[in-house]
Amino acid sequence: MGFDAIEVIVAKRDRGELSAAQIDWVIDAYTRGEVADEQMSALLMAILLNGMNRREIADWTQAMIRSGERMDWSALDRPTADKHSTGGVGDKITLPLAPLVAACGAYVPQLSGRGLGHTGGTLDKLESIPGWRASLSNDEMLAVIRSAGAVVCAAGAGLAPADKKLYALRDVTGTVESIPLIASSIMSKKIAEGTGSLVLDVKAGSGAFMKNVDDARELARTMVELGTDAGVRTVALLTAMDRPLGLKVGNALEVEESVEVLAGGGPADVVELTVRLAREMLEAAAVPGARDPEEALKDGSAMDAWRRMIIAQGGDPDAPLPKAAESAVVTAPASGTLVTLDALKVGVAAWRLGAGRARKEDPVSAGAGVVLHAKPGDEVRAGAPLMTLYADEAGRFDRALQGLDGAYEIGVDGGADLLPLVIDRVTA
Amino acid sequence: MGFDAIEVIVAKRDRGELSAAQIDWVIDAYTRGEVADEQMSALLMAILLNGMNRREIADWTQAMIRSGERMDWSALDRPTADKHSTGGVGDKITLPLAPLVAACGAYVPQLSGRGLGHTGGTLDKLESIPGWRASLSNDEMLAVIRSAGAVVCAAGAGLAPADKKLYALRDVTGTVESIPLIASSIMSKKIAEGTGSLVLDVKAGSGAFMKNVDDARELARTMVELGTDAGVRTVALLTAMDRPLGLKVGNALEVEESVEVLAGGGPADVVELTVRLAREMLEAAAVPGARDPEEALKDGSAMDAWRRMIIAQGGDPDAPLPKAAESAVVTAPASGTLVTLDALKVGVAAWRLGAGRARKEDPVSAGAGVVLHAKPGDEVRAGAPLMTLYADEAGRFDRALQGLDGAYEIGVDGGADLLPLVIDRVTA
Repeated sequence: MGFDAIEVIVAKRDRGELSAAQIDWVIDAYTRGEVADEQMSALLMAILLNGMNRREIADWTQAMIRSGERMDWSALDRPTADKHSTGGVGDKITLPLAPLVAACGAYVPQLSGRGLGHTGGTLDKLESIPGWRASLSNDEMLAVIRSAGAVVCAAGAGLAPADKKLYALRDVTGTVESIPLIASSIMSKKIAEGTGSLVLDVKAGSGAFMKNVDDARELARTMVELGTDAGVRTVALLTAMDRPLGLKVGNALEVEESVEVLAGGGPADVVELTVRLAREMLEAAAVPGARDPEEALKDGSAMDAWRRMIIAQGGDPDAPLPKAAESAVVTAPASGTLVTLDALKVGVAAWRLGAGRARKEDPVSAGAGVVLHAKPGDEVRAGAPLMTLYADEAGRFDRALQGLDGAYEIGVDGGADLLPLVIDRVTA
Repeated sequence: MGFDAIEVIVAKRDRGELSAAQIDWVIDAYTRGEVADEQMSALLMAILLNGMNRREIADWTQAMIRSGERMDWSALDRPTADKHSTGGVGDKITLPLAPLVAACGAYVPQLSGRGLGHTGGTLDKLESIPGWRASLSNDEMLAVIRSAGAVVCAAGAGLAPADKKLYALRDVTGTVESIPLIASSIMSKKIAEGTGSLVLDVKAGSGAFMKNVDDARELARTMVELGTDAGVRTVALLTAMDRPLGLKVGNALEVEESVEVLAGGGPADVVELTVRLAREMLEAAAVPGARDPEEALKDGSAMDAWRRMIIAQGGDPDAPLPKAAESAVVTAPASGTLVTLDALKVGVAAWRLGAGRARKEDPVSAGAGVVLHAKPGDEVRAGAPLMTLYADEAGRFDRALQGLDGAYEIGVDGGADLLPLVIDRVTA
C-alpha cells in the first residue's frame, strides 16, 4: 500500500494520529530509501513536537522490528532475561549482572552498544580485556549462551536496520530528545533480540539522558507499555544518576570494579543495584528454582560464569588490564562532608581523559578514567585525595580538570541531598 | 562566525528565539551545502510549529536576500512600483496592471513565476503570445522598462538563491504552510528585485493559498512589516478568491480577457481590481502627476504600453492566440440564482484540462481552460451553458468534470454569500 510522504508529514504536523498503515509504509519506504532523509527529519521533528500516542508508538516500534531479522531463543531450555540501561556515568552493571543472572538459572542474551559522549559503552569496557571479541555470529551467540549462560555482544546489522538509519538521522537533526522516539528505538532492538523478559534501568539525574525524574518515569512507562504490548514481560526501575555509580569510571577501571563485585566485594551501590536488578530479571523471567543472587556472588558461581563468558568470547580473564601511563590527583579544598559529586561533570572529565568518544569512529582509551576516593555523604579532609584522574597523555588533564569545575561541593553541616539509589519501580 | 546546525535546530525546537547571527549563518551555510537538507527540513518544521517573531522573520528574509544579487533601479528617472499576488484562479491581473501603471507614470519592473498546481503562473500566460520571451538579462530588463515602462519577466537565478533552494525543500517536506516562511520567501525576492514600492494582493478563499481571511490578514500583515522594515513602501489588499476572478481561466484565455480590459471592456471584477491595485501602486510609489488609471484604460494609453511591452520581449500582440482543439459545455441543471462557484474546483478543472502543471518540468497547454458563462449572483436557466471547458485532447474532459463535482450551487431564493472583492487594506 502506497502513501505520499508529504501527506504523512502533514498529518503529524497538524496534530493528527498516524494510522498503522501509514507508519508501516513510512518506516519501510525510508529504510528502502524511497522516503528521503529530509522528509523523515521533518516527520521526526513533528513527532518530537506533537507526540505520538501509545498505539502509534507501538506501531512505530513494530515497523522498525519488521525492517530486519528477529532472533529466536526458543530452542534454549531455560527462560531468557535481558536488561537495558539508558546509560550513566560509571554504569558497569551489565558486566557483573549478566553472569550473575546466568549463575542463578536464566539465560542472558544481551546485545549491547558502544559509548558516545560522556556515558560509556558496555562493549568498550569489555574490549579492554585482552582478546575479548564483541562481534559474534548468531550461531556463536548461541554457543556462548549454552556454555556460559550469558553473552554480551554487538548487535548484528540485521537487527532493526530502520532504527540504525533513524538513529543516525536523529543524531544530526536535533530530534534525539523525544520520548516516543527514544522508547521505540530502544525497544525495537530489545524486542527484535527475542528476549522473553526485560528489566529496564532508567536513570535520572545530571549524568543521565533524562535529567529529571518525571521525564525518566514517562520514558520508563512508555517502554514498559511497549514491551508488554509486544509480549515481553517488562519492568523498569528508576535509578539515581545524580552522582556516578560506584567508584570507578572508565573502561578497564569499570571491568576492575565489576570483577571486585563478582569476587564478593565492590562498592555498596554497585552491589545493591546489581543484586536488585538480578532479582527483577529472575522474577520477570519466572526462572523455576532460581538461586539467590547474593549467594551466587558469595560462593563464586557468578565469577565462574563471568570467566566462562569472557573465555568463550576469546578473552583472557587472568590477563592484566591496560593501565593509563599518566595520573593526577585532585585533593579536597576543605574539610567537611562531600555534599554533591556531579555525575555529568565526572562523566565529561572521563570522556576528556580518553575514556569516551566524540564521534562513532573515534577510538577510546582502555586505561583512561577517574577513580573516586569519596562519594557524596562521605567525610573528607582538606588536602586528602578526592579523585585520581588517569590518561594516556598528561596533556589531557587540563581540559578534564576544567570539566570538573563545580563538580563537587564540600559542606560543614553534613547531609548530602541525593536521589535514592532506586527511586521507583514501574510495571505494566 | 560558525555555529552548529544542531544547536540552531534545538534552539527553535525548544521555542527559543534565533539570533540574527544564527539565522545569517544557517541560511548561508545551507546555501553553500554545509548545512544538510535533512537538518534544514527539521529546522523548517520547528519554525512552522513554533513560529518566528517579527525580528527573526526580518533577519531570515535579509539573510535570503544576501544570498544573491540585489537589483538597483536608481538609474531610472521615475519611481518604481511592483505588485505581488499570492495567487488564485483566473488571476490575470498582472497582465493589464503592469502596462496600466506604466501608462499612468510609474516604472513597473515585475519578476514573475510559473504556475504549479491549480493556480496559473503569469509567465505561462504570457508565453501563449507567439514569440514572447520570459527570460531577460538585467540589461534587457532595463531596456524594456525604458521603452515600455513595464517589464514582466522571469527572476534570474542570481536573485535570492537561498529561497529557491529552501522553497524546493519545503515543497517535499510538508513545510510550505508557515506564514513566516511564506512571507519571507515572497518578500526576499521582492526586496531583492529592488522596487521602491510594493502592493500585495493577498487572496483569501478556497482557490487561494490562504483559505480563510484571518490567515490571509496575518500573512498580509507579516509581509507589510517585512517590506516596511526593509525600506520598501508596502501596502496589502485582502481580496476575494472564493470564486474565480473574471470569466476566463487558462493561459491564452486569460491573455484574451486581459486584452479586453486594456481595450476598455472586460468583466467588472477584473476591471475593478486592476484599477484599485493601480491606484494603490501609484500612491505607494508617490508618482508625481500620475494619470488616472480609469482614463488610461479608456483612452488606449494602457493598451499602447501593453503592445510596447509585448513587442519589446519578442511577442506579437496581433498574432492570433492558440486555441484548444476540443471543447465541452457544462449546462445548468436547474433554473435559479448561481449561489456559489468554487474557485478551487474551477482551478483544479482548468489544471486537469492542461492549463496547469503537476511538476515543475511539465509543459502547459496554452489553449486549455475554462470559460464561465455565469458568475455567482447571476440568474441561470436550466439547460443553458454554465461554462465551456477547453482542452487539446477530449480525453481530459472526464477528470475535469469530476473535479467540478459540487463546484456550483443554484438556489431558488437568490442571494449569493460571497466575500467582498476587496475585503480589507493592510498598511504598516
